[in-house]
Order: sequence, then structure tokens, then C-alpha cells
Amino acid sequence: MTIKLYCFGESGNSYKAALALQLSGLDWEPVFVDFFGGAARSPEYLAINEMGEAPVMVDGDVKLSQSGVIQQYVTDKSGKFGGTSQDEKYEVLRWVLWDNHKLSSQAGMTRFLMNFLPEDKRPAEVIPFMQGRLKAAYKTLEKHLEGRDWIVGDGITNADISCCGYLYYPEPFGFDRAQWPNIDRWLSNISDQPGWKHPYDLMPGSPADRA
Amino acid sequence: MTIKLYCFGESGNSYKAALALQLSGLDWEPVFVDFFGGAARSPEYLAINEMGEAPVMVDGDVKLSQSGVIQQYVTDKSGKFGGTSQDEKYEVLRWVLWDNHKLSSQAGMTRFLMNFLPEDKRPAEVIPFMQGRLKAAYKTLEKHLEGRDWIVGDGITNADISCCGYLYYPEPFGFDRAQWPNIDRWLSNISDQPGWKHPYDLMPGSPADRA
Repeated sequence: MTIKLYCFGESGNSYKAALALQLSGLDWEPVFVDFFGGAARSPEYLAINEMGEAPVMVDGDVKLSQSGVIQQYVTDKSGKFGGTSQDEKYEVLRWVLWDNHKLSSQAGMTRFLMNFLPEDKRPAEVIPFMQGRLKAAYKTLEKHLEGRDWIVGDGITNADISCCGYLYYPEPFGFDRAQWPNIDRWLSNISDQPGWKHPYDLMPGSPADRA
Repeated sequence: MTIKLYCFGESGNSYKAALALQLSGLDWEPVFVDFFGGAARSPEYLAINEMGEAPVMVDGDVKLSQSGVIQQYVTDKSGKFGGTSQDEKYEVLRWVLWDNHKLSSQAGMTRFLMNFLPEDKRPAEVIPFMQGRLKAAYKTLEKHLEGRDWIVGDGITNADISCCGYLYYPEPFGFDRAQWPNIDRWLSNISDQPGWKHPYDLMPGSPADRA
């Protein structure tokens, strides 16, 4: 049975789940959620996910939301991306949690404010504040990647697939990979993986559709 | 061997780890990190935790950071708080990730800005913006707890221990439990657990020490 992922191209959180599915080799397909058309706030969608968020994965009777949970499911089903020892498992979880707390959460919000809100509704003071916090997160990641190809161990894990969630998008939010050589190299390591696709190629929906 | 938790009273993220240890019955003790005195940014502490954050748990040779990872370690060691089926395990992880993304992360930051920064350094526009986002998070939690004693299943799990991290503190950040009857009832369920303590009683350090 084909796994379905409810998602949309602009969503870096969806991308984390889609990329895990894609690189795992599991049989999956994306189902478009028209987030910008309000579909995620509809009663039908809230019945699928009370948190009103994408992505949601459906595999037969299993329905899961939160990208990190879907990544764990992909790991449990495919044996991939979870780390190769108990130490690595904890280390993968550490970076997935850190990403949810410090990196993707703030990058996603800042990108949304700067690109998907009308200019007159953008909270002017919030954007530089968030960019300052994000800079601290980039520093942490850049330092960790010094001398490493991957965040944990010797190969790609959910730590990488989580932390890269918003870092391939073209819309400006204050991240320029050229300024962070280790992050830049690591992003290339990920995009060199067989089957890798850019978020707007991997999932339906992009700003171009609404232009 | 006694588990050591590097923590400080004001840190809700530390509280999540301390409360899991405390309610698990494992042998543990807190070690004070003088965060407000700059200790967490010292080279010595950054060698313990490159993310420069509390808490950090040390159990013999095992050293872990990120509250959600420490909670998972407590679960692996004690058999408690992880859920009783595979479905519950995913559901616990879902709420822990949600908390890291939407609730504790933003509550902790807002409380910090409103209480631990000098008044003339507070970013005035950021605070109401974050409070608006937090209100959406309280709504999600309030709705989920309708008719439930616990976030997942029939007993306390890491989902509860994570989401309550900042909700017992007295400092104002825009959360008033009286406005959220289900959350209020659930917080009492947690504080009724044998061994429960308030953050300022469970961990060393509080604003009173610096007054």
C-alpha cells in the first residue's frame, strides 16, 4: 500500500517528512493540502490533525502528524536514519528536538512573516529579533559540522533531514548558506543523496502557483 | 550511582527533565548551573553542552542534553512515561515535539523577555506577538484535554511532563490557568502525583536568590 503524505511545497516541516520518505525508498505519494487557501483550518482537516498543521502521514490504519514522528515511523519501517547505536539514537533525537525548538520553528516563522504575509501586516520588530535568534542557531550548527559530513555518525540521519528542512528554500529569511561554509558543505552532502529533490520538486504547491 | 542533573530553577526545560527524574523514582540530584551569572556560556560548560543550554544529565559515562532526550533516557531506564503501545509511543513523541515547537519554546522565551531582561531592553512588539502565538497553543492543548485526564492514554507520560514545563511558574508571561479549565484540571492531576514539587522547590536557584 502506498503511504500518503498530506503536505504542500512551501512547508519545510512537510519537507522533512517527505524527504525521509523519499530517501528511504518506501512507496509514498504526496497529497496536496491547500494551506494558503485555508484548507488546513477546515473542520475536515482538523479532524485529521487537531493541531491544524501539515504534514500528516497515512499508511493504512496508521495516521501520524508532526514531521519528527513521521521520521521515526520511516525509521521504524525502513531501518534507516535512526542512528546505529543507542548513543546515536539519543544524539539523533537531541538534534531533532533542537531543530524543533531553535532552528526550523524560527526559520519557518521568519520566512512566513517575510514572504507570505502582506507587507503591511509584517511585524517589523519581530523579524530582526527572530533573525538574531536564528543566527545563534546557525552558529551552533556550523560549529558542530566542523570536520563532520553528517550531524550524527557516518551517514545521513533524521538529524540531518530535520535540520535542513527550511535551508533549501529560495525565499529570503536571513539565511545565506555561502556565509556558513560547514552548513553549505553539509547541505550539498544531503542534496547529493540518490533520489534527493528540492522541496518545490518533491511536493505539490509553490509560490509560483499563486503568482 | 546517583544521576546528576545540571539545571537551575528558572529553567522550564530543566524542570521537564527534573520532574521526569523525580516522578520516576530513580536516584538523582540537581547540580546548580548559574545561568544568570553566565556559567552556561563559559568554555567549561560549552564543553559539556555545545548548545550552551541547560539541562544536562550525567549518569556514569552517559551524558545527555535536551530535556526530551533526558525524558527518553528516564523512560528507557525506568520503564515509565513512554506510553504503553506503539501508538502511544508515537503520540507521546508527537506532543513532546509539539511542545518544543509551539508551547515551551515560546512560553520560555516570552517569560524570559518579560521577567529576566531589564525593562529598557524588552522588545516591545515581540512580546504580544509571541503571546498571540502562545494563545493558539493553549487553545490546542485545552481542546485536546477536554474529557481527558492525561495528554496520552490513561496515565502521566512524557507528553504531560514536557507540556507542563513552564506552566507552574509564578512570573507573568500571559498564561493564566484559570482561563483554561481543562489545562487547570490537568495541571492539578500532575501536581497530585506522589513526589511532585514546584520548579523552585525541585531545583536550585530562583529569582528570590537574586533579589
